[in-house]
Amino acid sequence: MTKRTIPQRRFIKPSFNYLIEKKRDGQEFTQEEIRYIIDSTLDGEMPQHQLAALLMAIYFQQMSAQETAILTEEMMLSGEVIDLSEIAKPKIDKYSTGGVGDKTSLVLVPLAMASGVVVPMMCGGEHDYVISTLQKLASIPGLKTDISIEAFVSQLAKINGAIVAQSEDLAPADAKFHELRKETGTIPSLPLITGSVLSKKLAEGSEGLVIDVKWGNGSFIKDLEQAKQLARSMTRVGRSMKRRCVALVTDMNQPLGDSVGTALEIKEAIALLKGEGPEDMQELVLKLGMEIVRLAGVAGSTLSAKQTVQRHLTDGSALEKFKELVKAQGGDVSFIDNPDKFPKAKYIRKLPAPKRGYVHTINAAMIARGVHLLGAGKEKAGDKVDHAVGVSEIKKVGTQVKQGEPLMMIHYNDESKLEAALGYFKDAYRLAPKRPTPPPLVVERVA
Amino acid sequence: MTKRTIPQRRFIKPSFNYLIEKKRDGQEFTQEEIRYIIDSTLDGEMPQHQLAALLMAIYFQQMSAQETAILTEEMMLSGEVIDLSEIAKPKIDKYSTGGVGDKTSLVLVPLAMASGVVVPMMCGGEHDYVISTLQKLASIPGLKTDISIEAFVSQLAKINGAIVAQSEDLAPADAKFHELRKETGTIPSLPLITGSVLSKKLAEGSEGLVIDVKWGNGSFIKDLEQAKQLARSMTRVGRSMKRRCVALVTDMNQPLGDSVGTALEIKEAIALLKGEGPEDMQELVLKLGMEIVRLAGVAGSTLSAKQTVQRHLTDGSALEKFKELVKAQGGDVSFIDNPDKFPKAKYIRKLPAPKRGYVHTINAAMIARGVHLLGAGKEKAGDKVDHAVGVSEIKKVGTQVKQGEPLMMIHYNDESKLEAALGYFKDAYRLAPKRPTPPPLVVERVA
Repeated sequence: MTKRTIPQRRFIKPSFNYLIEKKRDGQEFTQEEIRYIIDSTLDGEMPQHQLAALLMAIYFQQMSAQETAILTEEMMLSGEVIDLSEIAKPKIDKYSTGGVGDKTSLVLVPLAMASGVVVPMMCGGEHDYVISTLQKLASIPGLKTDISIEAFVSQLAKINGAIVAQSEDLAPADAKFHELRKETGTIPSLPLITGSVLSKKLAEGSEGLVIDVKWGNGSFIKDLEQAKQLARSMTRVGRSMKRRCVALVTDMNQPLGDSVGTALEIKEAIALLKGEGPEDMQELVLKLGMEIVRLAGVAGSTLSAKQTVQRHLTDGSALEKFKELVKAQGGDVSFIDNPDKFPKAKYIRKLPAPKRGYVHTINAAMIARGVHLLGAGKEKAGDKVDHAVGVSEIKKVGTQVKQGEPLMMIHYNDESKLEAALGYFKDAYRLAPKRPTPPPLVVERVA
Repeated sequence: MTKRTIPQRRFIKPSFNYLIEKKRDGQEFTQEEIRYIIDSTLDGEMPQHQLAALLMAIYFQQMSAQETAILTEEMMLSGEVIDLSEIAKPKIDKYSTGGVGDKTSLVLVPLAMASGVVVPMMCGGEHDYVISTLQKLASIPGLKTDISIEAFVSQLAKINGAIVAQSEDLAPADAKFHELRKETGTIPSLPLITGSVLSKKLAEGSEGLVIDVKWGNGSFIKDLEQAKQLARSMTRVGRSMKRRCVALVTDMNQPLGDSVGTALEIKEAIALLKGEGPEDMQELVLKLGMEIVRLAGVAGSTLSAKQTVQRHLTDGSALEKFKELVKAQGGDVSFIDNPDKFPKAKYIRKLPAPKRGYVHTINAAMIARGVHLLGAGKEKAGDKVDHAVGVSEIKKVGTQVKQGEPLMMIHYNDESKLEAALGYFKDAYRLAPKRPTPPPLVVERVA
């Protein structure tokens, strides 16, 4: 039989104007067009002003499920894709859209590791004053999150998990997109968020992904319906790229747990790893942990998933894995054994309730802003983070308080920074005479 | 009485991100914000990619009538505003969104001049292959359209009219906007078109403006409803800036008149200035001419407006004024007296009807493209325009033709350019067995 030559369909580069107008008019891009946009973004052929206009057109006209999947895949393929096939264990990652006081990753990664699940976690930096997992880990002396891909993979093979900074070699097209999106009001576009998150996450080599989509005043997604849409968009694209994906839509209308800060949150995470700690965090860890072990195939039924998670938290194996991770990344494990070693703030004062009543709402974004002002975040590159500052013993929505009773404790080192922060903390709390019904912690499960 | 100090409200510069997000979310800009956008565009403070995103957000979210008026005024005030108050005559300008075969300005300006109306007309260049008034005038040897504002004003004072190239000193902010709009798919935004056109037109010093908004396959506005909206937007803004404004929404679903080309259209204009020429052009000249003399206050009633226009066309005074204008701008008047002096094409051939029937539709944009390919337009800067080429004796929509009968005559100098042009001409015509009803020439009057 003679070999037939199949004529390659030639892709004729369209003008950038044509592409902008096509999306502006609500039409769907082809795979070739999306690849061309990504390529031209990477090599700088597409001028920034035209890409900016295109991103805004995408914001308004959206992208179809298929376009979003292609965008994600092409962005992923713009850089290195880590191959973890040599590690013969289930590999599941977890992603959260980000929330105030959310220290679940610090608990879930060791928990999954203890369950025999490999978690190749790369994280981004702070956004909207929300302290990132990396910034929290930085409060542990010596701990490094900026490691090579080789070291990352070998750590995964050795101890099942790693929490490191996003490698620039993964999905570099996303970095270019993201930089421009920040300056053009196009951050909140669902297909662009989906492409941005999943292109990086799926390049990390995991077979599955548990996604925590947060909605509320402490999330960049204020609208529940939008959060549900994002959860659907992400799981759909994940599936179309042959990854197991589950998303939980969860509440971010008040800080998670009892504390917000870097070391303060590490301490809370250590408590949670011992099966202790605040109720809401315990619930979230349980729910997300169950998804991870089920997605990994470690547990089949809901019951066995629950038992697996609870066992690893109570028998000390999750905490042990956290210590292994800290040690592997060069951190001082004695801080985990003895959390009292973490630096303490010079001053601790209460935020007094201005009247009696029930905590009706807490604006989590304002809490984050206040903690940032105390020194937990960087105002500019080069600033030193103050790991001692933050807030603790947060009175949550629905709690009854008397006048003057503490709504929370403020940890600070610098009197001059207190005043501005205090303004945010005060404004964040609203008290009401009647007990409110707090929204459910997990609103929806999308699989 | 002591003089009270009124505290000036201070405008705190917002971030460009804030402005983009504000418009993205459909909110209205304040006067200070629009002025700040214009200022930052002019001095280059606002990065191109942020302005591009803003323009696309405006495309989708529109601008209110008030915002559009402010935009227009601020763009106008970004440059020189010509003061014609020394000229004690009514000053009315005319603007068309552009159409194929549209030579009305060449007739209307002298007609208005003859009626005692001053017409300070500045024109832009070719767009979408539509030959501009300036390109047509360039077929008259010696005629200059690139003159100083001083010479422009003194010519107006002397002979009532001038047709010159847009001065860069007028509305320079618009030039910056326009350059970016061309590359970002934001040309068809109604408020941006309104601002762009009126900021320049109203800087020319006229007291009133007659606007011809064309809709159809030969206009950049394909949709009648959009054309009506633009007409309303422009007259509304014109009025809010205390100018008399009338807009006619007219048909551009086939070429206007009998010919398309540079010298060919000048010849048709000369015929029209003698009260002759094709019917549709005569009608359009009459309708627009009547609007000009009424807006100028030269004629009160419809009847007297009609008589004024017709008198100046039949008594030779309009033609005389055209010669004065040509002479004032350095052109060779003998070409107007004897149009046979214009260069003729080496070859003239017919476009034969492929079958018998009625001309059902003519795609005017394709005719323009074909004429452009024959050499009537510039492919790139520096190219020489061929003033002899074009098409004439165009069979209009509704005309009955036999097979092989000419649909039009093609004037060309270069065999090698004919083939591609011919493809456009053939494709432009659609014949049908039944006589179609052509759309009305003037669809709506907006005042």
